[in-house]
Amino acid sequence: MRDTNIDMTEIAAVAAELADAARAVILPHFRSATLAAENKQDGGFDPVTEADRAAERAMRDILATRRPQDGILGEEYGASTGSSGLTWVLDPIDGTRAFICGTPTWGVLIALSDAGGVRFGMIDQPFTGERFSGGTGGATWIGREGETRTLATSGIKALSDARLMTTFPEVGTLAEGRAFAKVASQAKLTRYGMDCYAYALLAAGHVDLVIEAGLNPYDIQGPIGVIEAAGGVVTDWNGGAAHHGGRAIAAATPELHAEALALLRDVA
Amino acid sequence: MRDTNIDMTEIAAVAAELADAARAVILPHFRSATLAAENKQDGGFDPVTEADRAAERAMRDILATRRPQDGILGEEYGASTGSSGLTWVLDPIDGTRAFICGTPTWGVLIALSDAGGVRFGMIDQPFTGERFSGGTGGATWIGREGETRTLATSGIKALSDARLMTTFPEVGTLAEGRAFAKVASQAKLTRYGMDCYAYALLAAGHVDLVIEAGLNPYDIQGPIGVIEAAGGVVTDWNGGAAHHGGRAIAAATPELHAEALALLRDVA
Repeated sequence: MRDTNIDMTEIAAVAAELADAARAVILPHFRSATLAAENKQDGGFDPVTEADRAAERAMRDILATRRPQDGILGEEYGASTGSSGLTWVLDPIDGTRAFICGTPTWGVLIALSDAGGVRFGMIDQPFTGERFSGGTGGATWIGREGETRTLATSGIKALSDARLMTTFPEVGTLAEGRAFAKVASQAKLTRYGMDCYAYALLAAGHVDLVIEAGLNPYDIQGPIGVIEAAGGVVTDWNGGAAHHGGRAIAAATPELHAEALALLRDVA
Repeated sequence: MRDTNIDMTEIAAVAAELADAARAVILPHFRSATLAAENKQDGGFDPVTEADRAAERAMRDILATRRPQDGILGEEYGASTGSSGLTWVLDPIDGTRAFICGTPTWGVLIALSDAGGVRFGMIDQPFTGERFSGGTGGATWIGREGETRTLATSGIKALSDARLMTTFPEVGTLAEGRAFAKVASQAKLTRYGMDCYAYALLAAGHVDLVIEAGLNPYDIQGPIGVIEAAGGVVTDWNGGAAHHGGRAIAAATPELHAEALALLRDVA
């Protein structure tokens, strides 16, 4: 059972502090001539920048003071357990390939989760100055000048009317790619390469469907918090919980989710 | 022979006026709930918004006063001839699919061309507030706060080191897609869906190669002006002039251009 006694105002304030700290660390590295990408994987291309690591350290420092009772799961420095049953899930730069190519589609992902799933999520976009967040009180966009809007997913119910976003063909197995292509062939239009910004645009009602594969928990938990609070549905490709990572489908409405899910189920 | 007596300072000033006017018209429509996309093509999805048309009208009004002697080729309202031998080539919203999906990758493209090709180009990015332009005096980036930087393409010479961007698989024929895939398989990484922003990032040295197909003259002339002034090379897939549209390859260096071009030549 979920602990309903969490102070969500405090959680949102701490998340904002984390995102502010990450921005301050990361932005000076973005589009810098000295940006040095390292290879985390042999053979593959998974660059990790100094910015990525330094931003996670900055966020962990804040949590050590503000929320010492909570656990942390971070992309760069792994997991630590807490005593509260709550875990901060951090991806300091989601979209490192975007980052090293100078595109404004990478973001800072922050979530607070318990054993039952995501309680709060944030997608921060340092370059455009936008912050998308969602929790029990709904979902909110904050712009560069501090202006705010309530986030709500679109009312699109039919796949034939849906704007679809994905990181395919950059991600996924052959079987996953084929399943994705089935959905794409029936969607109104498909756009590629938007990284975590796609989830933010879904929460804001600008696109209707996001399909991904090969995710880690820290890639999807921030988006889950924002999208669910904006009225959307996020599951894995079998309709189960998506917060463990892997394959995810996020939709503006339950009806659209069901229609697309029927094309994705049972992929090997 | 090219007229060398063009006042490039005036040209740059007029282009800035055009881009300012387009921004003012377009931005209120971006991410607006009432954004109405129409279908320009039967069967295909080629939305044209009111913003697109209104922005071209605003730019044409300025040219009628400031440069009545020049011709105009615009995406929305076609071609008109002038007496100067110079033509303004305008794409008020390049990336209408991006625009209706709320992604910050669409832009305003402006070029000034003569019979020999592009003399000046601009890629304006209203949402991020960035302006990329290039002419005989080099290429320049202007940021949201008015700060400026000189644009220069990267020094990357080998395809295996190159960051490649494209709108494939959304564009192109099957044969074009296969040729593109050959290049992509040898590149360091490939990213999708960036629309005209990809050319701007090439001029700024953040990516090294852009390959597109199915272009109109107004899709490529603005980028040609910026990229050439930043030190890059832009041609069609046979090494000829790219300003008529069709298939384009833009590269950071002549060496990289030659290596990629060898994989694209002679596509049916």
